[in-house]
Amino acid sequence: MRRSLASCAAVAALLVPAALPAQQSEIATSYRAQADRIIAAALRDSSAYARLTELVDRFGPRLSGTDRLERALDWVLMQMRRDGLDSVRAEPVRVPHWVRGSESAELVLPYPRRLPMLSLGGSIATPPDGITADVLVVSSFDELKARAAEARGRIVLYDVAFENYGQAVAYRTNGAVEAARAGAVASLIRSVTPYSLQTPHTGAMRYDSTVGRIPHAAITVEDAMLLHRMQQRGERVQVKLYMEARSLPDAPSRNVMAELRGRERPGEVVVLGGHSDSWDVGQGAMDDGGGVVAAWEAVRLLKVLGLQPRRTVRVVAWVNEENGLRGGTAYRDAHRAELGRHVAAIESDAGVFRPLGFGFSGSDAALAVVEQIGKLLEPIGAGAIRRGGGGADISPIMEQGVPGLGLNVDGERYFWYHHSDADTVDKLDPRELGECVAALAVMAYVLAELPEPLPRSSP
Amino acid sequence: MRRSLASCAAVAALLVPAALPAQQSEIATSYRAQADRIIAAALRDSSAYARLTELVDRFGPRLSGTDRLERALDWVLMQMRRDGLDSVRAEPVRVPHWVRGSESAELVLPYPRRLPMLSLGGSIATPPDGITADVLVVSSFDELKARAAEARGRIVLYDVAFENYGQAVAYRTNGAVEAARAGAVASLIRSVTPYSLQTPHTGAMRYDSTVGRIPHAAITVEDAMLLHRMQQRGERVQVKLYMEARSLPDAPSRNVMAELRGRERPGEVVVLGGHSDSWDVGQGAMDDGGGVVAAWEAVRLLKVLGLQPRRTVRVVAWVNEENGLRGGTAYRDAHRAELGRHVAAIESDAGVFRPLGFGFSGSDAALAVVEQIGKLLEPIGAGAIRRGGGGADISPIMEQGVPGLGLNVDGERYFWYHHSDADTVDKLDPRELGECVAALAVMAYVLAELPEPLPRSSP
Repeated sequence: MRRSLASCAAVAALLVPAALPAQQSEIATSYRAQADRIIAAALRDSSAYARLTELVDRFGPRLSGTDRLERALDWVLMQMRRDGLDSVRAEPVRVPHWVRGSESAELVLPYPRRLPMLSLGGSIATPPDGITADVLVVSSFDELKARAAEARGRIVLYDVAFENYGQAVAYRTNGAVEAARAGAVASLIRSVTPYSLQTPHTGAMRYDSTVGRIPHAAITVEDAMLLHRMQQRGERVQVKLYMEARSLPDAPSRNVMAELRGRERPGEVVVLGGHSDSWDVGQGAMDDGGGVVAAWEAVRLLKVLGLQPRRTVRVVAWVNEENGLRGGTAYRDAHRAELGRHVAAIESDAGVFRPLGFGFSGSDAALAVVEQIGKLLEPIGAGAIRRGGGGADISPIMEQGVPGLGLNVDGERYFWYHHSDADTVDKLDPRELGECVAALAVMAYVLAELPEPLPRSSP
Repeated sequence: MRRSLASCAAVAALLVPAALPAQQSEIATSYRAQADRIIAAALRDSSAYARLTELVDRFGPRLSGTDRLERALDWVLMQMRRDGLDSVRAEPVRVPHWVRGSESAELVLPYPRRLPMLSLGGSIATPPDGITADVLVVSSFDELKARAAEARGRIVLYDVAFENYGQAVAYRTNGAVEAARAGAVASLIRSVTPYSLQTPHTGAMRYDSTVGRIPHAAITVEDAMLLHRMQQRGERVQVKLYMEARSLPDAPSRNVMAELRGRERPGEVVVLGGHSDSWDVGQGAMDDGGGVVAAWEAVRLLKVLGLQPRRTVRVVAWVNEENGLRGGTAYRDAHRAELGRHVAAIESDAGVFRPLGFGFSGSDAALAVVEQIGKLLEPIGAGAIRRGGGGADISPIMEQGVPGLGLNVDGERYFWYHHSDADTVDKLDPRELGECVAALAVMAYVLAELPEPLPRSSP
């Protein structure tokens, strides 16, 4: 109990060391040969990259509720069957159906200019004639509060520099609520990214029942800074916003999954995957087509290599991570009876760049095991195991006590592309994607093969 | 004559060493105090950055023929007068007047999707209903020749990776001519850049009287690669192109200039500058607002410091570098009588990032002098003098024998922004811009102050 607890809420329970297999410290030697075979096979060709490219080129971005997403899921199911995986199936999920429609933003004063923009997911539309209003630029919620009197009747623009995702995304998530509270007629954010080539980034936002709903959209970093400078020079800044965004009734969709059935304890499961949906821009190649394909290819690779572990390895393409998490919650509900036999859940949803290792949320005793498995990934530099981690899609089952892992990658440029038209497959490297496949395959295989399941936290 | 000749055509003449001032080798010590004062003053504040920001924020991009450009030039003239510079004036130049108009590209097959695009400068329009045609993607002019039969009636897309600007820009410049020769109805290029976040880049193109004119535009790197992959998979790729681009009659514009009059030989001139015009996207902040402001601030700084050199230092904002070079040729014609007394011409048109030094085109003897001056810039790392260099705007007077210098900078990301909406002032650093001012001011000052003018090549 000397280790500091992870920040993950899922691990808030007291952790007590469980009984460990005698060979725990020998994992790194016991499974070395299999791990090396897996790594070599994953790096032998660029089949994962070819599969990802086909998925994102053929179907494009895959927002929940769209026909594109459903056709992509049909294709995934068909390919999983061709791969000869076990129990290929789809489980029904009702998903939100938000539609962007036409949209535009235009600087009116001090001079007319088109402002590249994206409505934020979940936003309402403007009236049919749009909203034309003076702009108040603020740098923070605190500044908005201090200048609330100036916000009334205006469009509030949050010009907030990206320090980290959590800090910056607060304005995307809650910006409309706070602006509406101050009497604003619409709100804009500076796109959530540390780097921009006039690239707008979308993403989820929320409303609050205590205050009216106003349209909420992102403009580019460059333009947010420009409008801020104009205001600082004392110029009158006016913007016309036009948005048709609307929410339609929930639509039918699916979690798609397949297995490599365990040879001894098929009822015990290591589940891994990513999310099939994406925002309606770019190709959703790294968020999260790459995560789905890397997990899927990891399982296919185990099958190809004849490495059928003791327990079942299940790959899931969860749906609707971006704007609802309905796939993750539906999986929890549909599999509630077997969650006690879920040995671990692994998510890849941070891009499929060069893998560094895994974040882990679970007991100290389990962490010690995972660290041993990490040693098997040192040949590809992916052996670093950090406290804390998981993923949005697996968070509902982590809350039920399932130990969770998230693939960590070199994410230096991840947010350059995230939720934008620049999330395209050409940004990814076949070798790095292969390394992600290797990392996921080795971790899943050993977790499914160990004589004893990963020790759980006490409830 | 042991040195290899520079590639610059302007220096094709035989070079003969001229008489050198005895103190040539002592330049680095003789002018050290003044150089250090200039550098300290240039780095003391961010006045150059503030001036550049005001220019590009107030007037935006400044394509030849536009009212924006003329208003920007009025502002520059007014500010130069406020600076108290000598002989502030405008010299008339007729410039081409190309207008982009509305434009769009849409992928029709295999599925509909908007393709971010920019018509290339000088292109004609499509018919009013646009051009819808199947696409032939090629990787080179050679491939186009080999597949000429397939190009007839199609839109040719050149998917050419950026190795260097000269190699890639050939497809922007000559792509329409070569595609038309093969019977294509329009041509597209992959934007000329090594890096993209779905960013289209414009730039100049040409037609040829021997073949019909077809519309010519740029799509993004990502989309060029996507369409190429689709073709490689055997998919039918069809695009609808709509362009209103047209050339209007030439419009009146101006070269704008100001001086610090020489205290002993005012008829001898060191001219420096950049170009006032830009493409009609982004802010034209680094191409070339920054070059104009850096040169202008260099001259203002000499005045503020009371460093009035022996000869006249003249700053010029040449117009129409981007699509005609009319400013550079008009300057040559208007100043033909005094070109023999132009000691040197210095251009800054490669971005105002961290300066590295200068490229120089002139005699060996002159190079030796410039190298000595370079030593004065070593404290800011800007002392490297390379053979060859100059700039487009000064190329007409370099052809008349004026020694030419071009400011070299760390241009790693220059082409990420070049001719795109991402050419904005926020990409530039106040300190680095100040270093560019310092480099230009020191070089111009010493060239104007030396007892003997820079030795010329023999004609």
